[in-house]
Parts: sequence; C-alpha cells; structure tokens
Amino acid sequence: MMNKKGLAILMRTKTRPLSPVSSKLNQMQASLPEGDKVSSQDASLIPRRDFSQVRESMHSAMLTNKTEIVDVALDDFSEGYIFLSPENRYKILLSLSKEYDLNRTQVRELMKQHLDLQLPSDKAEDNDHEEEGSLSAFYKIERNLCQALKPMYEVLFERLNTHPGGLKFLSDIRADILRLLEDVNIASLRALDSHLKEKLITWLSPANLELHNITWDDPASLLEKIVAYEAVHPISNLIDLKRRLGIGRRCFGYFHPAIPGEPLIFIEVALMKDVAATIQEVLWDNPPISEHEASCAIFYSISSTQPGLSGVNLGKFLIKRVVEVVKKDMPNICVFATLSPIPGYGQWLLSKLASSEMSGSVFKEKLLKPEEEKALMDASGGSDLGSSVIKVMWNLLTSKNHEWTNSPNLVSALRTPMMRLCARYLMKEKKRGKALDSVANFHLQNGAIIGRLNWMADRSQKGLTQSGGMMVNYIYRLDDIEDSAQAYLNEGHIESSSDFRSYIEDDNGERAD
Amino acid sequence: MMNKKGLAILMRTKTRPLSPVSSKLNQMQASLPEGDKVSSQDASLIPRRDFSQVRESMHSAMLTNKTEIVDVALDDFSEGYIFLSPENRYKILLSLSKEYDLNRTQVRELMKQHLDLQLPSDKAEDNDHEEEGSLSAFYKIERNLCQALKPMYEVLFERLNTHPGGLKFLSDIRADILRLLEDVNIASLRALDSHLKEKLITWLSPANLELHNITWDDPASLLEKIVAYEAVHPISNLIDLKRRLGIGRRCFGYFHPAIPGEPLIFIEVALMKDVAATIQEVLWDNPPISEHEASCAIFYSISSTQPGLSGVNLGKFLIKRVVEVVKKDMPNICVFATLSPIPGYGQWLLSKLASSEMSGSVFKEKLLKPEEEKALMDASGGSDLGSSVIKVMWNLLTSKNHEWTNSPNLVSALRTPMMRLCARYLMKEKKRGKALDSVANFHLQNGAIIGRLNWMADRSQKGLTQSGGMMVNYIYRLDDIEDSAQAYLNEGHIESSSDFRSYIEDDNGERAD
Repeated sequence: MMNKKGLAILMRTKTRPLSPVSSKLNQMQASLPEGDKVSSQDASLIPRRDFSQVRESMHSAMLTNKTEIVDVALDDFSEGYIFLSPENRYKILLSLSKEYDLNRTQVRELMKQHLDLQLPSDKAEDNDHEEEGSLSAFYKIERNLCQALKPMYEVLFERLNTHPGGLKFLSDIRADILRLLEDVNIASLRALDSHLKEKLITWLSPANLELHNITWDDPASLLEKIVAYEAVHPISNLIDLKRRLGIGRRCFGYFHPAIPGEPLIFIEVALMKDVAATIQEVLWDNPPISEHEASCAIFYSISSTQPGLSGVNLGKFLIKRVVEVVKKDMPNICVFATLSPIPGYGQWLLSKLASSEMSGSVFKEKLLKPEEEKALMDASGGSDLGSSVIKVMWNLLTSKNHEWTNSPNLVSALRTPMMRLCARYLMKEKKRGKALDSVANFHLQNGAIIGRLNWMADRSQKGLTQSGGMMVNYIYRLDDIEDSAQAYLNEGHIESSSDFRSYIEDDNGERAD
Repeated sequence: MMNKKGLAILMRTKTRPLSPVSSKLNQMQASLPEGDKVSSQDASLIPRRDFSQVRESMHSAMLTNKTEIVDVALDDFSEGYIFLSPENRYKILLSLSKEYDLNRTQVRELMKQHLDLQLPSDKAEDNDHEEEGSLSAFYKIERNLCQALKPMYEVLFERLNTHPGGLKFLSDIRADILRLLEDVNIASLRALDSHLKEKLITWLSPANLELHNITWDDPASLLEKIVAYEAVHPISNLIDLKRRLGIGRRCFGYFHPAIPGEPLIFIEVALMKDVAATIQEVLWDNPPISEHEASCAIFYSISSTQPGLSGVNLGKFLIKRVVEVVKKDMPNICVFATLSPIPGYGQWLLSKLASSEMSGSVFKEKLLKPEEEKALMDASGGSDLGSSVIKVMWNLLTSKNHEWTNSPNLVSALRTPMMRLCARYLMKEKKRGKALDSVANFHLQNGAIIGRLNWMADRSQKGLTQSGGMMVNYIYRLDDIEDSAQAYLNEGHIESSSDFRSYIEDDNGERAD
C-alpha cells in the first residue's frame, strides 16, 4: 500500500513527459532559440561529432558479429540517438533506409537462377526422385532469396529487439518515422516504416503479451503510467484514480516482458446495471452498484501508450481478451459496450457549416431542415441580426466556453440537428471505405456495431469541443463480432441499432422530399 | 508450501510421460499389435474419417478468414492431430509441406516484373524525383515477393502461435517432423522444418522469455516438470529435489507466457568453494557450504523440455542470463564452470577399440602406449589368456555392472589411457568442423573452454556407461566468452586449459617416437 506522500508524488507525474526520447527531445527543442536561424544554431548547439558517432555506432551495431561489441554499439546508438536534434534524427533514419537497404543486384541474381530452373510438372508423380532434386534446388534459392530480400536494417531491428530496452527504443524510433512521414513522402522511409511495423507486429503478437488486471495494489511506478497515459478522460485527482481501480471498475493492461512495469495499452471498464449514457455517471457517480448486480461491462477508455505502435492493433486483441476474462469472472455480465467519444465530429461539422455558408446557393447542401432552422433562429433570439442560420450555428458552436450549453433553449434547439448530423457523420462519412471517425473505425473493425447516440454525455471542455458533448455506445454482440468485423472490413458495411438508424432514415426521408 | 501427500504425488509423476501428444501416441502405439500387418490394422483401429477430418480442419484453419471458424478449426486440428496414428501424422505433415507450399508461378511472375525494371544508377542523385518513383516500384514488388515467398503453411504456424496452447502444439509438431526426418529425406519436409524452426526462433527470442528462479515455494505442478524433465542427473527422491532447490543451490528456468507453468529449458547451479570434481559432491555431500563462502557457480545440469525446440538454442541465452543474475546477486562468485557428462565418449572408445582389433596390423592405430598395455595386462591378471590387450580392455569396459570399478588395480591401470583418449576425443574428434561430443559442442559454441577432466566423477551406471565415469568442467571465462565462441564457430578452434592440453601433448609426444 502506498502512503500519502507516495501518492502525492504519483499525481505530480502527470505533468512530466514519460518517454525519455520525447522528453529529452522536448527539452532540446525548448532550449533552441526560435527564428529563421534555428537549423544553423541547432548545428552549433549539438556537436557535429555526436551525429557521426551515432551513425558509426549504428553501423557497427548492424555489421559487427562479436556480441560484446554489438551490445556496446547498440547502447551507444540508442543513447546517442536520444540526444540528436530532430534534424539529425531525420538524417540518421534516412541514411538507415537508403544505405542499409537490400542488395538489389544479389536479389536479381537469385531471381535469374530461379527463372532458369524448370518448374516440375504436376503430373510427374511417377518420377519422385527427380522431382525431389528439382524441388531441393527451388527451396534453396527461395531460402536465399528470402534472406536477400531482407534489408540490412532488419538486423538492427532484430538485435535491438533482443537487447535490453531495445523494443521500447524501436517503438520510439518508429514514432519518429511516423512523425517524419507526415511531412515528407520518401519511398525508402516508407519501406523502413513498413518493415519495422511488420517486425513489431510479430514481436508484439498477443502470444507474447500478458494481460494484467491493474489494481490499487500495483506499484506506484505502474499507476503513474496510467495517470500519464490516460488519453480519453484525463485522471484529475487521487479519488478519481482510486475509483477507476475500485469496486465496480476494472482496468486491464497488456504488458510485454521486455517493457516491464508499463502497459503498452490499457482499457478501463465500468460494471453497471445499464449501458451508460453519460461519462459523468461512469467517472463521478458514487457509490457504484455492487458488482453482482451488474449486467453490463462498459469500456469507457482505451489508451495506447506507445505512438510508435500505431497500426499494430493491440486494442482489438485486448478487448477480446478482456471480454473473455470478464465473462469468465462474472457470468451475469451479458452486455459489452463502450461509451466512446466522437473525436472528429466537431471538426467535421464546422467544416460542413463553413463550406455550406461559402458555396453558391446552387450547390449548397441543405444541412438543416426548415423546422430546425426555425427553432434555432427562435432560440438564438435574433442575436445575430442579418446572419444566416448556418452562421448562427457556427457562432454558437465556436463560442468561448461553449456558452450555448447554459441556455436550455439553445440546447434544445441544437439537439435535433446535432444528433441527426452526428449519426450521418458516424455512418455515412468515409475515407477509403472506412468510417471517417477514428474511434468509430477502431470499434467497427473490431466487430462492434453502433448502438446509442447520447446527448450531453460528456460536458467537459474537451467533450463539448470534440463532439458538442455527444458520446456513442458501440456494442460488442459476442455472437456477431466476427460477422460484423468482416462485413465492415470487406464491404465497408456499418451496422447499427434500429434506434440509431432512425436518425439516418429520417434524414433520407427529408432528402427525398 | 506443499504437504507430504502433495510431494508424494509429485514424485510419482516421474514415471508418467508429460506431453499429451507423446503420451497419447505411446498409448496408441502400445495398443497396436506388432507384426507385418501393423499398418492395415492401424487403419482399422483408427477410423479413416479421423484422418480426413483432421486434414479438413487443417485446411480451414489456414484458408478461412473468420476468426471464430479459424479458432474452432485450430482446436479441431490440434486435438485431432494428437489422436492420429504415426502413419497418418506423417501423411498430414507431408500434405502440409507439399500442398500448402508457396505459389511458384506467382513468385516467378513477380520476379519477371522486378527484372523488367531498370536499377537506378548510383550517380542519379540529381534526379531525385524520378528515383523516388522507380524505388517505389521496387519496394512494392519486393514486398509482394516477400509475401509470395511465404509458404501457405506459415499462416497455420502464425495462427497457431496466437491460439491458446498453439505454441506448445507447434513445438510438438516440430518434434514429429524431426523424428520423421531421421528416417526420410524429403526436400519439402525439410523446407517445412526449416520454416517452422525460423518461426520458433523468432517467437522464442530471449526478449519473449522470462527467467524464473525456481524454488521449493513454487507450485507442485511446476516442480513435477523439473522432476520429469531432468535429463542429466535424474532426481531420485524428495530429499534430492529439495536439496537442488535449497541452500547453496539454484535452479533457473526460461518460461514463455504462452506456455505457463512449464520451463522450456532449465539449469541447475551449485554454489561452491572450488570447481566440483565429482557429481557426488554436488548432488549428495551434505551440508553445502554457506553461500557467502562460495566463489564458484557450477552448472551441473541443463535440461531442455521440448524436443521440438532443437536448434533454437535457448541454452546459450539461458547461461548468459544466469551468469548475469548470479554475478549481480553474489559478487563474490568469480568462477563460472560446468560439471558436464561426456555422453559420446564410451561409444566412441568402444568403436575405436573394435576397429583397432579388427583391422590388419598395417593400418592398425596404436591406441594404447606400451606401458599402458603392460599395466593393463598386469592388472587384469591374465584372466583372458591369449587375448589381445585391446580385447581385454573391451571386455572390462563392457562387463556387466562395470565390475572393473571394484578393483583398485584395474581402476588404476585404466585411468591413464582412458583419460588420455578422452582428452583426444573431446579436443580432436570432430564432425563437420564441430566437436563430436554433443555436450562439448554445446558449451564450446557458447564460448566456454575445456577445463579439467575428472576421473571417477560420476559413478552412476549411466555415468560409467557413457564415459567410464569421467566428467569434464567447461569454464566460462567472462571476458573471453565471445572470442572463444567466435574462434570455435569460425575456425573450429577448441580452447582448453594447459592442464587439459598436457594429455594431448603427451599423446603427440608418444606418436612422434
């Protein structure tokens, strides 16, 4: 058990960045003067030899064969890399991707050898001996080709993976690569990323991860990670943290043996009588019901701690495992649902309003129904005389401190159009065949369906800005998870409850008028 | 803590085979009548549809995409496979290796596409844009080729790996493949083995394994595994087991999260004042010295529990980790050495004696020195009148219950030639550049050197048969481990103590006469 002082220290960590790479990088960036000359001053602040030293240690970490030298080089490389300027990191990663790529000449030599061999005919069953010999030759070239197709930098990845602290460092490196790829589009860097991602997927397969039920009895060093990494509903004080680990609540994390004391991803669960409609009742209502009365497990927060593991999809497996564990532990739980934010809705709605206001009347999309327009104009009390209803709505939604939430009339007038448009956003707005909203896409690809849209479910500043305070329940119906996931992944089909669909049908009906 | 009954049950497990696959297989084989008709009776005992069912579940486990169906198919396959006759297992594995191989036509199509592209010239630095495009095309084909070069059965391996119990099952399957490859030489089966081995090496990388100090406080279900799998010095009773986990002793195991409660490999360590010269003082002398007086850590037993993990070389990493842990825990320990059996010596010596006796006098190898011959003839008291000294030695070594060990004269007469020839066997006898003796090869490739040869170090029946009771200490000199390993692996160089070398030099001196 922790004493008060330990807990006070624990809570303070919230403001302290945890990753050594990003924290040291931030310090470094903070210490750099701003302005045009940043990059040249940067070069004078960080000694040039650092860069070449790091590059050299990277080189020997890949190409030496003596374990002791490799171990030292891996340490030098990972420690040195952390202290590089962002610019030099970029140069290191580019050098890695271009100069330690595969040997294309050797690859093509093997391809020619393969093509020179004659494929055994399918009917040559009677000539087993000859076929054996020919197959041997194929297998040999194919094995060599597989080897030759591995870029040299895979050796670095593999060695780091078995080196203490190396797996975490690889995840930090990938976070850097992903950040770079937001700005530049370089084929070799994309190839570097895709190879590293493949490796991480292999190494972080669910078989290598351990599920741990995180409780108040866990070490403070672990709990501070939960506080620091909680990305959905920030943990504000001790009572808050303790409640999230107490009666009627669960917190499960996925751990890797090589990254001890720090979950790669964790999920927070509330055991409730009904599917929660607001985050307030999950986070603050007190006391929770006794656990044997619960029939619903509500996943109200899932946070990934490693930006470098983007695309590794640990969340899918975590949810699957947690459902299994909870079901086994508490057979009376029969509903598994989330209470999820809709992080992209606010932004999407504002851009819809803006383009509706800007575009000529011919191509103008009718965002609001006439009765919605009227209700909104009435409620806003003609405060913006001469403004269009779209402009009124824009002003309300972007007003400081979300003042509209203090007026029952405005809340009531906004409710209908906001919910209708949100349903459309969740179900109809797509990008490359997938739901535009990232959280929706996450749960839909895991096999959930859209359940209920909840008005005024998250009244925090963050919740009001993200989605006008709305939240949604995604439902994991255990028997249909696989079918739903397949229908979504293969055909982009989004399933939802009939309750939810009524918003859309209503919308369609209006359009048909 | 366990009660007496628990321990009694624990000790009984020694006679019970542990692996469900091998135990069920053994029962099955035991139930089959012997004789010529085994295979047809086999077919009648084990219903034909079992085979096709297993084959079908294997097929859908690979080729379905719906997780639920895959999970059921994986269960069906692994449960069904266990109950197959050895003959049907063979057929399943052959079908897997041949019918679920890679698609060679597709592979060659991609190769042609690759060869049709022009390699970017090295000097085209100034034409970055064009180079990017061309590189993109290369990366794309190479990624697809990597995929196409993966045999279809890798999907089965990967799915089993993430399936509960699947990793263990894969190791059992590989044990079957290795057993088959002892009898048949089929290229596709060898390819299957090599792909599976690669996968296992990846999944069982040290980063995924946990080192656990096994103690008397561990669950009986774990301790029974130690009893059952101890392969070097069988654990004979409760006192024996308890001592091996008690004061002055350590037992470390490597565990994988997917195979809980069962070490993949474990090592037993004795903390001693001096490097042990006999296994008796390690296993039986009582009480051990107090731990703070110890300066040597003696690895006296290392047992791998999974025959299917042959070639994955967990032992090397285990020894490395254990050295680190012991050094950190007890800084006064400065010598790390083994007390190892010489499992191949007895067999090798007998075959040398036999071929010496059989071959004509011209090519006859002079195994014994004249004074050794004389001493041996004197000690054996002319019991075998007219026999050659070689025949006398053969008879002594193969005598029932090793009667020669009861005669001080015979023991003394055999000691010099037996030790000299053993040193030669360990240092000079090789197979493909590696030490012929498997235990020697294991420690030499890990970077140990040969230390001291110990006469009458293991007086058990097993020890006397294997090596005339001799054992050897391999020494891990921490600063030189890497150099020694490299010299051995690259040049086949075997390092040894000067003490040990004197046997060989003596031998060479004699030959020069």
